[in-house]
Amino acid sequence: MTMSSQWKTPQLQSKLHEADIVVLGSPRPEEIPLTWIQPGTTVLNCSHDFLSGKFGGGSQRGHFGGLIEEDDVSLLAAALRVQNMVSSGRRWLREQQHRRWRLHCLKLQPLSPVPSDIEISRAQTPKAVDVLAKEIGLLADEIEIYGKSKAKVRLSVLERLKDQADGKYVLVAGITPTPLGEGKSTVTIGLVQALTAHLNVNSFACLRQPSQGPTFGVKGGAAGGGYAQVIPMEEFNLHLTGDIHAITAANNLLAAAIDTRILHENTQTDKALYNRLVPLVNGVREFSEIQLARLKKLGINKTDPSTLTEEEVSKFARLSIDPSTITWQRVLDTNDRFLRKITIGQGNTEKGYSRQAQFDIAVASEIMAVLALTDSLADMKARLGRMVVASDTSGQPVTADDLGVTGALTVLMKDAIKPNLMQTLEGTPVFVHAGPFANIAHGNSSVLADKIALKLVGEEGFVVTEAGFGADIGMEKFFNIKCRASGLVPDAVVLVATVRALKMHGGGPSVTAGVPLKKEYTEENIQLVADGCCNLQKQIQIAQLFGVPVVVALNVFKTDTRAEIDLVCELAKRAGAFDAVPCYHWSIGGKGSVDLARAVREAASKRSRFQFLYDVQLPIVEKIRTIAQAVYGAKDIELSPEAQAKIDRYTQQGFGNLPICMAKTHLSLSHQPDKKGVPRDFILPISDVRASIGAGFIYPLVGTMSTMPGLPTRPCFYDIDLDTETEQVKGLF
Amino acid sequence: MTMSSQWKTPQLQSKLHEADIVVLGSPRPEEIPLTWIQPGTTVLNCSHDFLSGKFGGGSQRGHFGGLIEEDDVSLLAAALRVQNMVSSGRRWLREQQHRRWRLHCLKLQPLSPVPSDIEISRAQTPKAVDVLAKEIGLLADEIEIYGKSKAKVRLSVLERLKDQADGKYVLVAGITPTPLGEGKSTVTIGLVQALTAHLNVNSFACLRQPSQGPTFGVKGGAAGGGYAQVIPMEEFNLHLTGDIHAITAANNLLAAAIDTRILHENTQTDKALYNRLVPLVNGVREFSEIQLARLKKLGINKTDPSTLTEEEVSKFARLSIDPSTITWQRVLDTNDRFLRKITIGQGNTEKGYSRQAQFDIAVASEIMAVLALTDSLADMKARLGRMVVASDTSGQPVTADDLGVTGALTVLMKDAIKPNLMQTLEGTPVFVHAGPFANIAHGNSSVLADKIALKLVGEEGFVVTEAGFGADIGMEKFFNIKCRASGLVPDAVVLVATVRALKMHGGGPSVTAGVPLKKEYTEENIQLVADGCCNLQKQIQIAQLFGVPVVVALNVFKTDTRAEIDLVCELAKRAGAFDAVPCYHWSIGGKGSVDLARAVREAASKRSRFQFLYDVQLPIVEKIRTIAQAVYGAKDIELSPEAQAKIDRYTQQGFGNLPICMAKTHLSLSHQPDKKGVPRDFILPISDVRASIGAGFIYPLVGTMSTMPGLPTRPCFYDIDLDTETEQVKGLF
Repeated sequence: MTMSSQWKTPQLQSKLHEADIVVLGSPRPEEIPLTWIQPGTTVLNCSHDFLSGKFGGGSQRGHFGGLIEEDDVSLLAAALRVQNMVSSGRRWLREQQHRRWRLHCLKLQPLSPVPSDIEISRAQTPKAVDVLAKEIGLLADEIEIYGKSKAKVRLSVLERLKDQADGKYVLVAGITPTPLGEGKSTVTIGLVQALTAHLNVNSFACLRQPSQGPTFGVKGGAAGGGYAQVIPMEEFNLHLTGDIHAITAANNLLAAAIDTRILHENTQTDKALYNRLVPLVNGVREFSEIQLARLKKLGINKTDPSTLTEEEVSKFARLSIDPSTITWQRVLDTNDRFLRKITIGQGNTEKGYSRQAQFDIAVASEIMAVLALTDSLADMKARLGRMVVASDTSGQPVTADDLGVTGALTVLMKDAIKPNLMQTLEGTPVFVHAGPFANIAHGNSSVLADKIALKLVGEEGFVVTEAGFGADIGMEKFFNIKCRASGLVPDAVVLVATVRALKMHGGGPSVTAGVPLKKEYTEENIQLVADGCCNLQKQIQIAQLFGVPVVVALNVFKTDTRAEIDLVCELAKRAGAFDAVPCYHWSIGGKGSVDLARAVREAASKRSRFQFLYDVQLPIVEKIRTIAQAVYGAKDIELSPEAQAKIDRYTQQGFGNLPICMAKTHLSLSHQPDKKGVPRDFILPISDVRASIGAGFIYPLVGTMSTMPGLPTRPCFYDIDLDTETEQVKGLF
Repeated sequence: MTMSSQWKTPQLQSKLHEADIVVLGSPRPEEIPLTWIQPGTTVLNCSHDFLSGKFGGGSQRGHFGGLIEEDDVSLLAAALRVQNMVSSGRRWLREQQHRRWRLHCLKLQPLSPVPSDIEISRAQTPKAVDVLAKEIGLLADEIEIYGKSKAKVRLSVLERLKDQADGKYVLVAGITPTPLGEGKSTVTIGLVQALTAHLNVNSFACLRQPSQGPTFGVKGGAAGGGYAQVIPMEEFNLHLTGDIHAITAANNLLAAAIDTRILHENTQTDKALYNRLVPLVNGVREFSEIQLARLKKLGINKTDPSTLTEEEVSKFARLSIDPSTITWQRVLDTNDRFLRKITIGQGNTEKGYSRQAQFDIAVASEIMAVLALTDSLADMKARLGRMVVASDTSGQPVTADDLGVTGALTVLMKDAIKPNLMQTLEGTPVFVHAGPFANIAHGNSSVLADKIALKLVGEEGFVVTEAGFGADIGMEKFFNIKCRASGLVPDAVVLVATVRALKMHGGGPSVTAGVPLKKEYTEENIQLVADGCCNLQKQIQIAQLFGVPVVVALNVFKTDTRAEIDLVCELAKRAGAFDAVPCYHWSIGGKGSVDLARAVREAASKRSRFQFLYDVQLPIVEKIRTIAQAVYGAKDIELSPEAQAKIDRYTQQGFGNLPICMAKTHLSLSHQPDKKGVPRDFILPISDVRASIGAGFIYPLVGTMSTMPGLPTRPCFYDIDLDTETEQVKGLF
């Protein structure tokens, strides 16, 4: 039999070896060496042409199936030689993979004035999530349904689609916002509604899961708004599928392990400690797997617990955590300001080992950042194990692995790692997955959701993902941290602006949540807009540092005038934006963002010249300075002695080559929230530096960052209620 | 048309008025006045007899369907007169409702020696939970699936089946246990496996959801064990469907609301406070619903915020919580001993309003007790609103309603209220729902799960529910608190005993978790068993106080001898047990508990003469004394001054007529854990008294109760791991 040597893909070869089923008529079947196909393999031929060949036709229209046995190989060889089955193979496979979804979109009938978010959400009946999953090409065993409208997607889909080309990757970022936010989530959702429901292009929105705490404080929901929402919005804003609860449980198990371990070490001899850590079970002492790993790390090459010397016993049994170096905090998904600074361990049973500690909001947990940056279960476990919680008395880092808790953390997080599938108001797919804090962490949704979505939309499709805060923070971290971790290359940036925020940057009066807007914001004021566009221009330039084309999306409010809108678009384009378009998704849904969708499609068709801003091998200080100068426009940075000491320690501990995650206010390009527009000539003060080793970044603190929000005098919860007859939630917005 | 007046059920009439579909051939159709059936109603006739009548037969075998229009009414009248369609109607309906399930049971192939719990669980493939739900008569829209093996059951099923007679109601309780536990959960599961998989009787197990904290501490899982388990056991023991996480979120939102409110009241004038609590929105001030309720409670009959007098403003805006009276604690589902006593509010932002507080384990939250005792969404909301968190400076109770947070708590708990459906190792149904602490709360699974299960099993079926701790605690609370709340009447008690625990009561050496058992427990010792049976006899007598027949289930271990087993059964029957049988479910599954199942069936067929132990109208002290003397065998009780003061306060506040929930050690009938057997002549000291007003009980503390477990030197988590390739959990037991 003549073999062609043109097919040399080792991947294909190994696939055929492993496969139970081989689809022929696909990649040039005549060139596949028959030795690649194992006896016992079922062969399905899906080539249309093959039907007219020797072995097709009959009642089995569309495929020829058979189990290959030794004897059949020659028969198959004959079949493979049939010339007319060749041509359509590859095209067929491509069509199968890249097909446009046949998505049943949900119709909108927008009302005017626009009702409340929860009323809009409730008025739309979502598709059953298993129907949606099927529409976008997920197999039944790749999803785990949670109620009618949420499903987790298993990571096995990545393996199945690993040879599939990725879709286009679009980031939604924003200009420096007012405290009210400028609608990045809404733009993200409006854009995918436009792409899929109106332009018939496969698209996926990837959003962060919001913290539940603020939902009951001042913020309300985070599912988008108006006619660009994720539905049901109450499912989105409450528990979802429990991922944040899993993070809370894992985070606090680790915290409890730290303090309890210190107590036990302080109150027991080496021998007692060792005998408890490696207990007699049915007369035998054995190390657990994670203890063996610790021995290895300590350079003790022994596996029999009875053979350790006294010194080794002590080394193994004592972590000698220095309580003053503990950086691991407890967390709750509740706005509880009274937990910002507490003293723990005051019970008699804790024998006086009390210390000062704090609770952060759950999404500030490093485990959330790990979840957002991981790309597999094995990687997540490794990251969880690497997390540094304190230093020991000799200055060495103490990790979750040292505490023996990595496996348990992984078990607690085993379902949280699967992205959550929901849908927009128009029935298009959305992943809601991970929501790390945007200041002390990187503020982006998960790598895994983006990766799966990029496979599911196919080569011609779009994944629209959102970064927290303004582009100077969220986008910079998206590129330098998230894209570095994922290896994914963005094709376009959508930069969200509002006339309101631009007026503020132009010198308008201050904007405060809960206080009515001044008339500058509700009446036309061309001068303020023109002056404020400096912030937009600067943010466009920041995106261009990374070599990615920018489309400005002007999120239009009903008080914006034509002249104001035109001016913004004009100035944006002059500043180098690929395009700038007004969007009306909030009031009319995806239809209102069709222009934006077209512009994004156009921009993404250009070849991306994406590059990182800095080399991670640079010293920590240099990386911080690069961000401060190139992105924020600072003259220089100024390190406090604490910051310098921490940088020295992390460098010495071997963590100097991690990327930087700046913890800076999002309300100004500088460190001072009241400096609007484009502040110049400032020195950025670095007050302290911390590290999230498991997540994989160093985070310098620019000023103090609150990691635990509070409740106002009249929290949102006064309006939130459940109708016990209809089971409908009221008062969420 | 002649109408019979025999059918006078107003329920039936209103049902026919509302119905879209009427099933005829069911309750004496000839007697249903036609005016009851609305035009537009679809009529389905399911009577077999009807097929031979005038309007049946043909291709639509089994039913006759049609939409009633005005014209058809006379036709229908004729149909209704057909005599031969009458007889089978009622019987048919009854058969439909009470039918035996056609359950596909999962086969067991027990190994010897018995593998670990997680290995057994993993070796069995559970049925898809939607298949199980269908098998037991749940409709598709009555379940919400969570993954492959868990589902929530909607409360609407109670409305659909409200006319269905309940099945038999069986409680599993135990003798005073060793610290290792004597296997009540295992007996519960073995019993339903026997009833349904081996005797073909419909049955349901109703279990508590275990706290996740101890799973990583010392306790391990709580899904039963050996060949009598709920599967998948890791799903049972970890997050489940998030109910405990929802409780944590709700509990802590309320806690944050308390401290924040105190801070805001302390730092604002009446007017500022009022203006924030009733803010100007678009120029208008309006009270929210829960604020209107507070006004009503305060006796202020106004709805316009501008009309309140200064005094009324102050009364409305100030809760004046006395911080020293706060009884509401924060919770976490983590064994974190360092949170047993803490100081909160030490941050600058809290302006010096720090105070001492504590965290309890999440299942100790009153919200868990509310969940376990409620019977509907409306009732849960009312209970949550009634929860008392502190007193004000004038000694009046401050509630969740006063804080305006009831609606938000209800929203957070809206899914948690739905019982969770899982299955046993043999594929029979299990509800896992609620798991209140068994000392400071009543330690029983939910009323709602029991109620739904009683409907689903039908009149001939069995619901087996479990009480925490020994019968002196769990069973007493089951009867006096849970049955009082639910109105359900138990038909039998299964009292679980082990030779091990009896030997301990007979004077055997002490039994400690983690320490190997002494030889008295692994070798035959008839004398110890005989002496220890006093505890069994006493617990039987306690059950008899309530008029319910007792079957003793001897949970057999492999070291128990024939003579020991026979002796226990003999003594139990002599003490008044209806029957006493050895069980072998742990080693061979339901087959090993068939004798127990037969005995329970027999016992439950007797008429129950159930009665409460005390009248709730008695003074609090009398109720406590009754329990102490009649159940524990105390000579009397002794109140501390604190306890007396609290009793006086609760009585004065109008809470004197609630049932009593004793917080006593489970390791002895007395208050001293080391007093085994049947302690006599002791005075039960009541150190303090607390109240769970929302749950609906007063709980006297007998000694100190730890409400936050700790981690040992070597917690279970050292062995817990996830295989990142297979996604299998290792090391849970």
